Amino acid sequence: MKVSIIGVTGYSGLELLRYLKQHPFVEVVSIHSHSMNKKSLDTVNPHLQHLISLPLEEINPKKIMEQSELVFFATPSGVSKELAAPFVEAGFPVIDLSGDFRLKEHGAYEEWYGLSAAPNHLIEKFDYGLAEYRQNPRSKWIANPGCYATAAELSLAPLLRENKILLDSIVIDAKSGVSGAGKGLSQSTHFSETHDNVTLYKMNTHQHIPEIIQQLKEWAPKLNAIQFSTSLIPVTRGIFLTAYAKLKEPISDEKLVQLYQTQFKNDPFIRIQKVGQYPVLKQVIGSNYCDIGLAHNPETTMVTVVTVIDNLGKGAAGQAIQNLNIFAGFDERCGLDNLPIYP
Amino acid sequence: MKVSIIGVTGYSGLELLRYLKQHPFVEVVSIHSHSMNKKSLDTVNPHLQHLISLPLEEINPKKIMEQSELVFFATPSGVSKELAAPFVEAGFPVIDLSGDFRLKEHGAYEEWYGLSAAPNHLIEKFDYGLAEYRQNPRSKWIANPGCYATAAELSLAPLLRENKILLDSIVIDAKSGVSGAGKGLSQSTHFSETHDNVTLYKMNTHQHIPEIIQQLKEWAPKLNAIQFSTSLIPVTRGIFLTAYAKLKEPISDEKLVQLYQTQFKNDPFIRIQKVGQYPVLKQVIGSNYCDIGLAHNPETTMVTVVTVIDNLGKGAAGQAIQNLNIFAGFDERCGLDNLPIYP
Amino acid sequence: MKVSIIGVTGYSGLELLRYLKQHPFVEVVSIHSHSMNKKSLDTVNPHLQHLISLPLEEINPKKIMEQSELVFFATPSGVSKELAAPFVEAGFPVIDLSGDFRLKEHGAYEEWYGLSAAPNHLIEKFDYGLAEYRQNPRSKWIANPGCYATAAELSLAPLLRENKILLDSIVIDAKSGVSGAGKGLSQSTHFSETHDNVTLYKMNTHQHIPEIIQQLKEWAPKLNAIQFSTSLIPVTRGIFLTAYAKLKEPISDEKLVQLYQTQFKNDPFIRIQKVGQYPVLKQVIGSNYCDIGLAHNPETTMVTVVTVIDNLGKGAAGQAIQNLNIFAGFDERCGLDNLPIYP
Amino acid sequence: MKVSIIGVTGYSGLELLRYLKQHPFVEVVSIHSHSMNKKSLDTVNPHLQHLISLPLEEINPKKIMEQSELVFFATPSGVSKELAAPFVEAGFPVIDLSGDFRLKEHGAYEEWYGLSAAPNHLIEKFDYGLAEYRQNPRSKWIANPGCYATAAELSLAPLLRENKILLDSIVIDAKSGVSGAGKGLSQSTHFSETHDNVTLYKMNTHQHIPEIIQQLKEWAPKLNAIQFSTSLIPVTRGIFLTAYAKLKEPISDEKLVQLYQTQFKNDPFIRIQKVGQYPVLKQVIGSNYCDIGLAHNPETTMVTVVTVIDNLGKGAAGQAIQNLNIFAGFDERCGLDNLPIYP
Repeated sequence: MKVSIIGVTGYSGLELLRYLKQHPFVEVVSIHSHSMNKKSLDTVNPHLQHLISLPLEEINPKKIMEQSELVFFATPSGVSKELAAPFVEAGFPVIDLSGDFRLKEHGAYEEWYGLSAAPNHLIEKFDYGLAEYRQNPRSKWIANPGCYATAAELSLAPLLRENKILLDSIVIDAKSGVSGAGKGLSQSTHFSETHDNVTLYKMNTHQHIPEIIQQLKEWAPKLNAIQFSTSLIPVTRGIFLTAYAKLKEPISDEKLVQLYQTQFKNDPFIRIQKVGQYPVLKQVIGSNYCDIGLAHNPETTMVTVVTVIDNLGKGAAGQAIQNLNIFAGFDERCGLDNLPIYP
Repeated sequence: MKVSIIGVTGYSGLELLRYLKQHPFVEVVSIHSHSMNKKSLDTVNPHLQHLISLPLEEINPKKIMEQSELVFFATPSGVSKELAAPFVEAGFPVIDLSGDFRLKEHGAYEEWYGLSAAPNHLIEKFDYGLAEYRQNPRSKWIANPGCYATAAELSLAPLLRENKILLDSIVIDAKSGVSGAGKGLSQSTHFSETHDNVTLYKMNTHQHIPEIIQQLKEWAPKLNAIQFSTSLIPVTRGIFLTAYAKLKEPISDEKLVQLYQTQFKNDPFIRIQKVGQYPVLKQVIGSNYCDIGLAHNPETTMVTVVTVIDNLGKGAAGQAIQNLNIFAGFDERCGLDNLPIYP
Repeated sequence: MKVSIIGVTGYSGLELLRYLKQHPFVEVVSIHSHSMNKKSLDTVNPHLQHLISLPLEEINPKKIMEQSELVFFATPSGVSKELAAPFVEAGFPVIDLSGDFRLKEHGAYEEWYGLSAAPNHLIEKFDYGLAEYRQNPRSKWIANPGCYATAAELSLAPLLRENKILLDSIVIDAKSGVSGAGKGLSQSTHFSETHDNVTLYKMNTHQHIPEIIQQLKEWAPKLNAIQFSTSLIPVTRGIFLTAYAKLKEPISDEKLVQLYQTQFKNDPFIRIQKVGQYPVLKQVIGSNYCDIGLAHNPETTMVTVVTVIDNLGKGAAGQAIQNLNIFAGFDERCGLDNLPIYP
Repeated sequence: MKVSIIGVTGYSGLELLRYLKQHPFVEVVSIHSHSMNKKSLDTVNPHLQHLISLPLEEINPKKIMEQSELVFFATPSGVSKELAAPFVEAGFPVIDLSGDFRLKEHGAYEEWYGLSAAPNHLIEKFDYGLAEYRQNPRSKWIANPGCYATAAELSLAPLLRENKILLDSIVIDAKSGVSGAGKGLSQSTHFSETHDNVTLYKMNTHQHIPEIIQQLKEWAPKLNAIQFSTSLIPVTRGIFLTAYAKLKEPISDEKLVQLYQTQFKNDPFIRIQKVGQYPVLKQVIGSNYCDIGLAHNPETTMVTVVTVIDNLGKGAAGQAIQNLNIFAGFDERCGLDNLPIYP
């Protein structure tokens, strides 16, 4: 299968390249940047020397569709909504890693992203691509979930689907590595300001909030709101997410673990930790795994869910390839069966 | 005023030395270690070369009481309960930075620390030293609060004292730097395991939980439990604590900030952030400040409190000196009026 | 080809597992630990959950030789010299990642490692495995080079082989990540002591010094000594090595780069940087690459060589697999053709 | 003594504020920024809340000279050469932390900084302010040395002044924390690119090279060139510098240490380490200390000098205050006698 990548110079685009290099059935045939055309990719990214010989090309939809069978958009928010139309209208498969086609509710994108939204007829074509809960495996147009959203949704899916928690009691405290903010320069990604620091940002206004609620409502239609915080921590990669919710009835730790194991029993990338064991961030870095640990606190009647992913893996490029595998009918693990990098 | 420090070779002990070096009215006259006698302090701690000429001495209570007017214990849990008796029985002032004299409830120390407790008649002598809420300024025996406990209690004090929140809705997600774990060697403080990592530890069993509840009950006697998590993050110093609770009635951000400003109006080390502003960890490192930011979320009716301290400052040595200042009748700021180190 | 790994729980052993997982022609059939038998590997290393199903076994040479075709020793110094004899005596192939069989000169191991040496008849059997300069591709017993040694030797090989520098002018300033010190706990690998710090250690006494000199003498027999420093820097992985030497005659940067390109033209893992470009540490992490940048300074007549490797890749497990590939007649790149992990 | 600071919003300017806060005889009466006038300083720097009440003012030389007795320039290169003239021409004391007045040789500033130089009659007025070797304590105009330059010059002063080394054999390998690059945003200070990385930059072209040579020539007029490399390491603060040179005659480590102790016996901020002991970076952070360790290698006849400073302390603000103390006749240690922050 031949694919193209638009936005290859960003961190998610580079990570797509890394995973696809080891994919047995996929070949990257062209790479594109909306901002850095004409430069050679390995000049800007010396880690790719001798490894990627493709030139950076302009974005010519016609040419891409001739050479390729699917296109990834790994561009910042606001780009694919401008560029995806010719592909969709031609019936050509697209996996979009940005937030441009995720929010279905009218007005939500404008409100949370502060940008004008893609046309409705395009948004409607896209299916939300939380891989473990894909409804239409053959969907040609995938809105790949956000990194925080992936971790949050997988954390709560079993509890909500099995109706175990009070819907107004959910608190999510998520911590993210700095690569989640991309390559762009800003005070908040300046080393001297970020190192040895923690910053809570976008208090109650993070654009993944409506995305998470939209998905959680699939499982619990009466859910209206979640308390959701995002903090930047001084690591490059990874999301460490802690979710709290009140249980309707007490559940032992054993039953909790069992509930999650059952829910995810066919999902090779979800690894439920044993009773009393909680995942550390590093155990998933460089991989597509999502590791989840669980504890019930009888004093507070709350469950704590600890979830870790690599924001560039399961939170972006890894899940995008998983979605490609589902679409193409490959084994979900193709190109994604490497060991995490540790330490 | 002449003071002695027992446990000077640990991180809190060293930080006491650092602050007291700049204290206008206090002189450290002797330093002691329960484990490293006979060595010179600056051999083990080359940053102290030419700066501290005192020898490391054995712990001889009689001699200490002759030379000195107050003794700090900056020892790990389980030490001061064995060594403090002669001082207390002689009526000699003690500020204990460990957890040995904090928990008043019978059996609690054994349960949460896994050690036999100090004798009750000693525990009763000690006052809990949350400096902003000290009840007896002249108390001779101070159990200096734990680092997490300090941040948690100051975060919630105004809300509980003013009866603003639902008592069963409190969730605290606290992140700590590694120096909080002390100098001892362990897998969880090994650089290659800790760097680029986040680890949630002591799930629902952290020994600061009963300490926090004990203090919160002073303000809200009906409070029974809190959901409290502690994660290790890859920074050396600092606690970044996020507390969540449901408001009984909506309060605007302006009112929230005002509520806190009023509560802490005479407390020079508590800096309430403006509406829409949240503290970052680095803004208090190297200092005794506790900075607090506040937000109300009308969607969830929850308040989010973001609180930062230096675990070795306000969370240990800084607050201990603040307590000494209160006891001795000095201005609270003596020895503590330096700027945080930034960046 | 079936292989076994002794010392699989250390960082180099884990990295062997990681690379071999993606090797098309090699299967790991048994894993062994000299210290942690009976435990399950993924209990101690949760990143391996669902990925490695082999049990940790005792070290039974007979059984290993029955099941397997080659054994890796990824043990600390001092272990393989005790355990390798039965394999060697049975004519069974061994790749040893430790320093036990590298030094050929009588007495050198005792002097630099402070341990009794392996028997001479064993040491003589082992060939030094600097992969790019292997003399006997079919050698059954490989002493895999040290991490610093690999970087130092590759840095200087072209200059010495082409007789371009003054032999008494070599200065090597090498910086290493902390994983090079292994999993063992010590003050110098404690996070709070290592983070934000740099430490020069083993001044003029590092055990890689005689190893480097032994190899450099192959190319320049009159070389007697090198000035060599090792500093610990706060990263987990990687060696960043800067070598300086006086040129006998001026060479332009272009010629320098050409000299290295020519020398390494058949070596897929050596990437010579363009004129004016110097490698950064991160561009080789997670890979077997060794990237080298070069500059001539006409003011001092010195050449500066900047070399980066992943100490666990080209500096240990990666090169060990490269050596296996050479021995087995596979393409050198098998199992090693992944992209570095970036950022 | 009343002083003003121009460029207070940069890292060196903030560090001047931090030290001067604890200076017994100096008061900061006005603070200025060439780029951020009209904003409040503690809005941009929340660590200063409640601590600095001065407003950020425009740069009005006349007004500054009326209110104040000395002005610090803590501006980037290229600013003070435009703004210092009115002060100098009025005979008003200036301590300039930038590189604008350091290079005396005609054309050197243009060559190494790539900017037009200050007028010669101004440059001539400034004395180079390496505090331990100030020739004119009463000089009104001080060009405060660069951070690398300070560490390099102090490393080599005793060896050159006592004529112990071969002048053409000097190699300096210096590593710097990222705050040395200032607050400006760039790819090379982006967290995701800098963390876990090491980068050698400005190969043979760093602007501190001519500054160092200019000073070393004071002690060894025949010295013409040094080999000097600068690498960025993932710490916020600190310079770790290793200098190598060939000894004319062997000197024991004891004699080496003695030589340095004698040279610096009246210099409270230079701490020579004992034989066999080498400073670590962290032991000087937050302070004005320069710690130096020494070793002789009989195999290579080379001396290794290991030197650490805080680039914002002895490498900038600390030394500037030391220079003020010398000028004003205060004890050198005033405002600078705090303990380093550790860990």
